Amino acid sequence: MTNDQSNAMWGGRFAAGPDAIMEAINASISFDQRLAAQDIAGSRAHAAMLAATGILSDTDSQAIREGLLTVLSEIEGGRFAFSTALEDIHMNVEARLKEVIGEPAGRLHTARSRNDQVATDFRLWVRDQIDAALAGLEALIRALLAQAEAGADWVMPGFTHLQTAQPVTWGHHMMAYVEMFARDMGRFADARARMNECPLGAAALAGTSFPIDRQMTAAALGFDRPMANSLDAVSDRDFALEFLGAASICAMHLSRFAEELVIWSSAQFRFVVLSDRFSTGSSIMPQKKNPDAAELIRAKIGRIMGANVALMMVMKGLPLAYSKDMQEDKEQVFDAADSLMLALAAMEGMVRDMHANRPALEAAAASGFSTATDLADWLVRALGMPFRDAHHVTGRLVALAEAKGCDLPDLTLAEMQGVHAGIGAAVFDVLGVHNSVASRVSYGGTAPDQVRAQVARWKERLG
Amino acid sequence: MTNDQSNAMWGGRFAAGPDAIMEAINASISFDQRLAAQDIAGSRAHAAMLAATGILSDTDSQAIREGLLTVLSEIEGGRFAFSTALEDIHMNVEARLKEVIGEPAGRLHTARSRNDQVATDFRLWVRDQIDAALAGLEALIRALLAQAEAGADWVMPGFTHLQTAQPVTWGHHMMAYVEMFARDMGRFADARARMNECPLGAAALAGTSFPIDRQMTAAALGFDRPMANSLDAVSDRDFALEFLGAASICAMHLSRFAEELVIWSSAQFRFVVLSDRFSTGSSIMPQKKNPDAAELIRAKIGRIMGANVALMMVMKGLPLAYSKDMQEDKEQVFDAADSLMLALAAMEGMVRDMHANRPALEAAAASGFSTATDLADWLVRALGMPFRDAHHVTGRLVALAEAKGCDLPDLTLAEMQGVHAGIGAAVFDVLGVHNSVASRVSYGGTAPDQVRAQVARWKERLG
Amino acid sequence: MTNDQSNAMWGGRFAAGPDAIMEAINASISFDQRLAAQDIAGSRAHAAMLAATGILSDTDSQAIREGLLTVLSEIEGGRFAFSTALEDIHMNVEARLKEVIGEPAGRLHTARSRNDQVATDFRLWVRDQIDAALAGLEALIRALLAQAEAGADWVMPGFTHLQTAQPVTWGHHMMAYVEMFARDMGRFADARARMNECPLGAAALAGTSFPIDRQMTAAALGFDRPMANSLDAVSDRDFALEFLGAASICAMHLSRFAEELVIWSSAQFRFVVLSDRFSTGSSIMPQKKNPDAAELIRAKIGRIMGANVALMMVMKGLPLAYSKDMQEDKEQVFDAADSLMLALAAMEGMVRDMHANRPALEAAAASGFSTATDLADWLVRALGMPFRDAHHVTGRLVALAEAKGCDLPDLTLAEMQGVHAGIGAAVFDVLGVHNSVASRVSYGGTAPDQVRAQVARWKERLG
Amino acid sequence: MTNDQSNAMWGGRFAAGPDAIMEAINASISFDQRLAAQDIAGSRAHAAMLAATGILSDTDSQAIREGLLTVLSEIEGGRFAFSTALEDIHMNVEARLKEVIGEPAGRLHTARSRNDQVATDFRLWVRDQIDAALAGLEALIRALLAQAEAGADWVMPGFTHLQTAQPVTWGHHMMAYVEMFARDMGRFADARARMNECPLGAAALAGTSFPIDRQMTAAALGFDRPMANSLDAVSDRDFALEFLGAASICAMHLSRFAEELVIWSSAQFRFVVLSDRFSTGSSIMPQKKNPDAAELIRAKIGRIMGANVALMMVMKGLPLAYSKDMQEDKEQVFDAADSLMLALAAMEGMVRDMHANRPALEAAAASGFSTATDLADWLVRALGMPFRDAHHVTGRLVALAEAKGCDLPDLTLAEMQGVHAGIGAAVFDVLGVHNSVASRVSYGGTAPDQVRAQVARWKERLG
Repeated sequence: MTNDQSNAMWGGRFAAGPDAIMEAINASISFDQRLAAQDIAGSRAHAAMLAATGILSDTDSQAIREGLLTVLSEIEGGRFAFSTALEDIHMNVEARLKEVIGEPAGRLHTARSRNDQVATDFRLWVRDQIDAALAGLEALIRALLAQAEAGADWVMPGFTHLQTAQPVTWGHHMMAYVEMFARDMGRFADARARMNECPLGAAALAGTSFPIDRQMTAAALGFDRPMANSLDAVSDRDFALEFLGAASICAMHLSRFAEELVIWSSAQFRFVVLSDRFSTGSSIMPQKKNPDAAELIRAKIGRIMGANVALMMVMKGLPLAYSKDMQEDKEQVFDAADSLMLALAAMEGMVRDMHANRPALEAAAASGFSTATDLADWLVRALGMPFRDAHHVTGRLVALAEAKGCDLPDLTLAEMQGVHAGIGAAVFDVLGVHNSVASRVSYGGTAPDQVRAQVARWKERLG
Repeated sequence: MTNDQSNAMWGGRFAAGPDAIMEAINASISFDQRLAAQDIAGSRAHAAMLAATGILSDTDSQAIREGLLTVLSEIEGGRFAFSTALEDIHMNVEARLKEVIGEPAGRLHTARSRNDQVATDFRLWVRDQIDAALAGLEALIRALLAQAEAGADWVMPGFTHLQTAQPVTWGHHMMAYVEMFARDMGRFADARARMNECPLGAAALAGTSFPIDRQMTAAALGFDRPMANSLDAVSDRDFALEFLGAASICAMHLSRFAEELVIWSSAQFRFVVLSDRFSTGSSIMPQKKNPDAAELIRAKIGRIMGANVALMMVMKGLPLAYSKDMQEDKEQVFDAADSLMLALAAMEGMVRDMHANRPALEAAAASGFSTATDLADWLVRALGMPFRDAHHVTGRLVALAEAKGCDLPDLTLAEMQGVHAGIGAAVFDVLGVHNSVASRVSYGGTAPDQVRAQVARWKERLG
Repeated sequence: MTNDQSNAMWGGRFAAGPDAIMEAINASISFDQRLAAQDIAGSRAHAAMLAATGILSDTDSQAIREGLLTVLSEIEGGRFAFSTALEDIHMNVEARLKEVIGEPAGRLHTARSRNDQVATDFRLWVRDQIDAALAGLEALIRALLAQAEAGADWVMPGFTHLQTAQPVTWGHHMMAYVEMFARDMGRFADARARMNECPLGAAALAGTSFPIDRQMTAAALGFDRPMANSLDAVSDRDFALEFLGAASICAMHLSRFAEELVIWSSAQFRFVVLSDRFSTGSSIMPQKKNPDAAELIRAKIGRIMGANVALMMVMKGLPLAYSKDMQEDKEQVFDAADSLMLALAAMEGMVRDMHANRPALEAAAASGFSTATDLADWLVRALGMPFRDAHHVTGRLVALAEAKGCDLPDLTLAEMQGVHAGIGAAVFDVLGVHNSVASRVSYGGTAPDQVRAQVARWKERLG
Repeated sequence: MTNDQSNAMWGGRFAAGPDAIMEAINASISFDQRLAAQDIAGSRAHAAMLAATGILSDTDSQAIREGLLTVLSEIEGGRFAFSTALEDIHMNVEARLKEVIGEPAGRLHTARSRNDQVATDFRLWVRDQIDAALAGLEALIRALLAQAEAGADWVMPGFTHLQTAQPVTWGHHMMAYVEMFARDMGRFADARARMNECPLGAAALAGTSFPIDRQMTAAALGFDRPMANSLDAVSDRDFALEFLGAASICAMHLSRFAEELVIWSSAQFRFVVLSDRFSTGSSIMPQKKNPDAAELIRAKIGRIMGANVALMMVMKGLPLAYSKDMQEDKEQVFDAADSLMLALAAMEGMVRDMHANRPALEAAAASGFSTATDLADWLVRALGMPFRDAHHVTGRLVALAEAKGCDLPDLTLAEMQGVHAGIGAAVFDVLGVHNSVASRVSYGGTAPDQVRAQVARWKERLG
């Protein structure tokens, strides 16, 4: 059914036979070497605790801890030869430790197992990513605050359905994203607090009969406490899934902003000019500037949510405690974390560099009778009309302006009174985009003073 | 390319033409009527605030608030005729209010818009679901605690790779799920705290020029504060996504437990007997009992994570502020919430009723040289052997027992000393499944006393 | 940890106790009643076969087949009382049949089981949906062909990165979607051919010892053949997943077109005017037109791909043969099919009604030096320059035009020769958007004649 | 809000500033170098066509084609230095070609663009993967056929709900997977046929004014024809999504089989012994054998379906034609393809090596009154009872046997006649698992002869 060529390819790929296939599917060292620093930190804390509780001699513990530093420096210096035959980072490190310090290396694995070891390593790694995400989000928020402060009173269209609805301010729009990314920070912080428990000491799954001190290792590694159930400690991957969940929502926010930047950069909108550093050009159209970084940021939600789906699917229906399926957890989280950090950094850079086109924004804000709502609200407020009636009168005034080919502020008072006799000159105070945004002083509204107050609140909160 | 029959079907489905198609795709009343109570609560709070701030007369406000109660009682009593032509729950309620109280109904919509109204309604609904999930999880945890307390010292196999690894206790296994479901409670509680801000007063997207009091409506509806950015308030669906994320992880936990129950109910395992109430039988095999409820619970992660993917995909790349795409949010969350509540209730019922087969559990725990690790640990602890050497000696003893067709505790001391001369009679204290579990006294370990301590901790915490 | 109110809600939801919970999670009649027509068609074919093979008397078979028609008419007439206690559509129909015809009803279920029955019903239902999708896609393609034919030579910008790249024709853009939707038809047709095998006769899972004729029932129900393995027949849901996969890709195509329509409808683009029938307006801004239908179509990929994920997750890791988890298959497919059909119908209506704004399209096409590539190609073709050199010269000419504030065709020959002496007057034949599109005559290119040829090819193919 | 350490980490990660960030997010050479062979094949076909159509001189074309072979041999020999500054595989190859052959290299890119080039490369790569998947599936099917042939008459339990339902044969169970994997082959073959159209010649998006011959390049690259619309050609990624869809369903099949192997390998089931080559052991429990490969295969559906979700999400709502988001397509497909091929190879190896435990299978098949259905069918067939009555009588006989502690064939005729007087000695012909499976001779049933017929049919079909 298939031709020789593809059979050859198939054969070629796995020509080395079953053992090569098993090694390829089973070994994790190609990716879990990223856990080296965490693995060694965990082992050093474990060795210190084994000595403190008398399970290991001080001499052995000292040798182990120093030997591990040697191994770490070899890895960080790129002088470590990872071996696929040794399968994973734990065995690679331990085997090298044996070469470095000899017999005491064989005592390190007392009262623990690869199951609690990998759970600890991976938790530490994810915790570091959460800290990096928090830092990246904070930097992005600061960039947005700078834009918001500068443009607290620049008017632009507020869209619904990508149709101009009401004028808003540039600063207000930026601050909407500050709220989103701040919620992302909250989610990451909550995830960090929840995951910050130490699996070490759960051993294979049942705990151990050695008189270990789990509080000590937990504290040494910066955890708040040891995990309370050893079966759960080795079979839990909630921390990874919660990280992916928070990252997915954050990536969704990034995708929305990126989409806006792509649309705003079009020749038709011209709302914003992105910096050359985050765009690419054309060799024949020097004026052309493609928003490549924005497009790539927009796309990242795919791989991050894809990783979320992948790991959830892996965990679905797994009996306790450890199953090898769980080895599939790391690559998904590694890739999602890398994607998120890169997207945050690129977005922060773009926001910092981008230049709002104020004339284009203001012109767009003023089109489409965007202050019709202000007029209707004035009718309710000043004349006591029911809301639905005020809408009706406003509709007639808009139709009149449209027929005249002008905007609402360009109608004369007489023309307005022709539609409704009660209208007075005060109505002009609410027409026009600047009047409109200035009037929206309700808490959280788009008025420049509201925007400035929110900027100040966030600056104080970030410190 | 297609036959007449299918053309007829196609035609028949949409015979009424474009208007029928638009109504079918656009109207939301078929599902958003579930928001009726929230919509009316929101409108009543809004009306009270309008009066308190002088925007509305007390008389009108009073009429509106009472009229809304009338409408609510009609809806709850099943006496309300929902109209698809009126599109959504907001317009259905307002139109009926107009019939009930007349002109003042037209003043209710002052200083708000459908955009902040629906955001408020949906938030209130999701918040109720979080409360229901918390109650359901607490009930399930109590059922697990009862099982754990009863079986704190019943031995059973602890599995890795579905292979017997070490003996654990039934109570310990139950407590692993207590930890998982308690983390779920933490996630739902965090989501609740983060989402508990009020969108009302954001109006269409820019805030309003009416002198509204957003703190007042927020407080009246049980929110901690108003949302701080009006654009964000109408375009945010994080609260729905975070609910779906927490629900997905919870459903994953349920799927793992359900899988275990299905496997444990098999004729080959016989670890557990599920109650007839959560099983179905066969008309011809009276002894047969299918774990239908467990299987259906196992499956629920599909639709809950599916809803998570669905809403994330809807939100991907949406420009601010409101887009009609967001109307797709509700059905996903409704279905996921219903599925989660049902799965929690069914699992709680099953756990409460299920009967552990102690003899089968103990026999399985004792098979497969499950205390080999205990022996190895004893060699390390009592004889000071390095861990890796102890494993080697243990392997030889297991091989000896296997050759003899007996278990480790059945070897004589002389036989053991034949493998390693240093072994003494004290070794027998750690062999056998009861000795094994009793020895695992490290914090969070499987020893019955550890399990009882954890049960006590949780009971105190739940109150 | 949770308050009384939520406990009450929780309690209220499942106050009726375990039996109500089990019924709620277990019964499928609330949704599988949609399979009524398929169920009855399958039963009638089965009864006819039982008589033909002598397993049933002709009298009984006749009574059953007629009785089933009675039941069908009751269901279609809305006169059937579905019972949740009878769990599913199969038992509801059989119980009613017993009331209608008495004792022979008990003989219908000979040589079959609910497992092969539901697999047959669901397959028939999905097959109908494929036929409906094919019809809907064909109608949509015809609407696109009409647009393409009318606008074969209307120029518009061809975008990359939402930046103007080269002029194309409206017809060419429409035909791109024809290609996409035609591939969707191909996928649905392939799925139909692959799934068109009959599970009936697989019985519970092992086949049967009755001398049934599976070819006969397969043929009677329009299947190409019976399925070749009874275990597979009752445990396979590939047909549903393949339908969801094809529907997901189709929904992705719809989302791309819908996104374009939303952007094109903005005040900044004004490329297209959507019909009022697929838009909604504003009571105070009569000129405003929200592209609601386009936005909702854009969103449908969420729930369709969500259903795909959901069912894939349900099926993951299910042992053979039937597990109750598989009952979760139907609602996902029902919802995805309904969403797809509605989205296709709405898109077809929108395409049929939409009005291209030719002046806006042409003006946009001519901006941004969109024929720079044509100039570069001319330099290669006419002067034999290497491609990379031609790009360099073109860049200088564009810069010159930009400095002058004109477009490329507005440069004089002398100015051009100032940049490169070899340029002759013939260069003006390729500048300008009409010249540009007319020149792209490569197969599948945007030249009006190419577009018309493709329209003709598709019209002939569709018949 | 975050500490110095994480700020340092964040800073460290992107210390090199915006340019480093842009390069990191924008460059694709780190992964698209896997397209080198396809890129060069495409360029060689293009150069040959340019000469044949007179666009390029024979000398230049010859130089280009030979130079490309040199570059290819450098890449395949590991002697090529990929440059991130050159962004992607296309520019890396072209830049090197320029070094190798000089000026004519600048003429290669005539009448094409990176947009149609990458679309062609990626299509060729995916097509190769489809061929590899077909070969891998065929190998797996052959392994299953060998198992099925050997065990056509070995009895084992047929499960529903993981409860014994009826006896089936080992061969029949294997053949169920043959059907599934054969459908997978069909899906891949259909995808191949649909995608086998050539994008080359679409140029940037509009086609070209050069007199190219797209049929010629299409044929040279093994495509059936050129794509019919140039906009579609550069913006289509259906072929990648359809590959991922087919791979997801295939991975689902693999997950089901892998789950069975894990359960069957448990100490409680002991249905199968997996080869040491696809298992891992324990240093202290020599008898323990963990089914690692099966677990990892079970997990692969996660990353493959995750990739499917990821790419679908990337493509959602992208306007035509090319957007940079689409660069995210490759890594997802690369990873999914690698995962699928590895899982297929590992599964084939496991199936080839696995050893069914016939006594355990037969003992399990005979337990649980698994031939009760056979008895009921006999009552219908031999005594003419209605199906529902036969079930009732059978239930009473099973209850009698259960009370006696024996199986159905162990009841005496007298005992049976005590329940229903009409039962005769012939009933014993259908009781017992061997009689049962032998009797299921309906097409596709579990009878050994049916199994052998299906094996023969497949062997003939595969050739």
